[in-house]
Amino acid sequence: MNEFDMIEKYFLPLTMGQAGPAGLRDDAAILTVPAGRDLVVSSDTLNEGVHFLSGDTPENIARKVIRVNLSDLAAMGADPLCYQLNLAFPERPGTNWLERFTGALMENQKAYEIYCSGGDTTSILGGVMSISVTVMGTVPSGKAVRRGGAKGGDLLVMTGPVGDAALGLKILQERDFEKKAAMGQACPYALQRCRRPEPRVDAAALVREYAHAAVDISDGVLADIGHICEASGLGAYLSLGGFRYSKDVRHALREEYITIQDILGGGDDYELALAVPERNVETLLEGLRKLNLSPFVAGVFESDISGVHVFDTDGFEVKIETTGWVHF
Amino acid sequence: MNEFDMIEKYFLPLTMGQAGPAGLRDDAAILTVPAGRDLVVSSDTLNEGVHFLSGDTPENIARKVIRVNLSDLAAMGADPLCYQLNLAFPERPGTNWLERFTGALMENQKAYEIYCSGGDTTSILGGVMSISVTVMGTVPSGKAVRRGGAKGGDLLVMTGPVGDAALGLKILQERDFEKKAAMGQACPYALQRCRRPEPRVDAAALVREYAHAAVDISDGVLADIGHICEASGLGAYLSLGGFRYSKDVRHALREEYITIQDILGGGDDYELALAVPERNVETLLEGLRKLNLSPFVAGVFESDISGVHVFDTDGFEVKIETTGWVHF
Repeated sequence: MNEFDMIEKYFLPLTMGQAGPAGLRDDAAILTVPAGRDLVVSSDTLNEGVHFLSGDTPENIARKVIRVNLSDLAAMGADPLCYQLNLAFPERPGTNWLERFTGALMENQKAYEIYCSGGDTTSILGGVMSISVTVMGTVPSGKAVRRGGAKGGDLLVMTGPVGDAALGLKILQERDFEKKAAMGQACPYALQRCRRPEPRVDAAALVREYAHAAVDISDGVLADIGHICEASGLGAYLSLGGFRYSKDVRHALREEYITIQDILGGGDDYELALAVPERNVETLLEGLRKLNLSPFVAGVFESDISGVHVFDTDGFEVKIETTGWVHF
Repeated sequence: MNEFDMIEKYFLPLTMGQAGPAGLRDDAAILTVPAGRDLVVSSDTLNEGVHFLSGDTPENIARKVIRVNLSDLAAMGADPLCYQLNLAFPERPGTNWLERFTGALMENQKAYEIYCSGGDTTSILGGVMSISVTVMGTVPSGKAVRRGGAKGGDLLVMTGPVGDAALGLKILQERDFEKKAAMGQACPYALQRCRRPEPRVDAAALVREYAHAAVDISDGVLADIGHICEASGLGAYLSLGGFRYSKDVRHALREEYITIQDILGGGDDYELALAVPERNVETLLEGLRKLNLSPFVAGVFESDISGVHVFDTDGFEVKIETTGWVHF
């Protein structure tokens, strides 16, 4: 089985018979953006040993690469359309791996109503796999939500609790076997959240209807809220009293498996942080709850300050030591 | 200088102040496809040690990654718009490398009137760099040229001579120092063609106006013409008598630095192979010559055969041993 056979057997079905990719027979895919809609495009690369573990299952890798990309679209208020899949393999993948990987891609495609529009498969030296996805979505013209649209007085709405992904990662990285087992048993939801990002794709229509600005929590809670502040030229007060946590995170805070600092520095929750004018907040919260999300108001944006300032439940400002993940 | 500083200093200018990428401050770029045009999308990944040499200059790498992607658009008859740039670095690149790499990207952007719409920079283990580009272009609605449109009786038109890239690569890989020097001195154009792909972007409008089907020569001359045949459900007769070669390739054939088999198996010339109805051939050739190209008629597509059959200048069928590059 050579490269072309591999593409035909495993990757061709991912185009789901769409006319645009035309059975991957062409040099490029031809896509039609419906009249009255803008195209929204985002890319994310995941590398073995950096963004996913070397021993990770093909299902986890497939799920993650699709979902982190869809999360970026959701943060723009865009509806997903399709994606380009660029795979660099250190050696020819086995048929079992290919079946499971592309099977999981297909499952996710169906769940989010997208298809694969093309891509590239290559060989790479150095022993690690690299996966780049460029995802495309659409939004009614002029309705995409940027990070830079927040206004002073907008409330900071989170689409759901944060900290689970950071806790899950902490469990995976724990070296004390007994402690790891205890943590894992007590916090199964956090482990799942860390392995299975849930992009808030369903919330995209509400985001573009009700939010001035949005970002997905991928770099870190504070870092990403900081991105809104910087782009909008203002600051934010975060009130930990308003934060909601999952049962697992509450347990982990009590047991000191995790600190508030870990939560605020942690990314990968893929909830959205939104800047919402006060008049829209109740309608938005109600809409998000109807999607089975657990949104909450976490603070307020202020035009006369800069940066993100965190206050604890007693109203004291908290000193923050870490703000998020940087690659270099 | 951390990741964000690096992006701001070196990659932000590549957006050329376009509204879509909005200073790379958002989770995604917002693009408008003009009414009456389709979007054409293609991806290519280049990995260090596989698609470019480890010691290659940043200028060569930048040029190649942009141009091989643009070549795919040209083959569809599409005009380039912008591209997503995904970079995986084994270690933090030095400022000199970054300046030269992004400087070369900028130069190519200006030459081809495109901009960078976004992307991702990541770290990767294993010691080799990986670059994935997803390029986007547009074409008048319904006018994109596919591989599958060739009809029996269409003539096979090449936009220019082939074999130079294969010859250039042969020179680079020659281990006999004296022979390498002699080859290099005699064939400077071939060396340049191998380092500097020339995508036929200018020919896109002619391609969509006059060709039934098109492909760019990237995998190999025969392999790529074979792709048209497969997709169109027909075959082709290639007549070597009609082929045109550069001065360098003619010299290399005489000196036996290279064989016809090497030329037909070689890719990376980035000329276009077109299936053109006879009535359009003269107008197309004239148009291509006005673009300073040296097109020629290389054969004919036939509906009652399959595969690509090569005939030498004396009319004898040539047995072909290799058809192109596969990764696995």
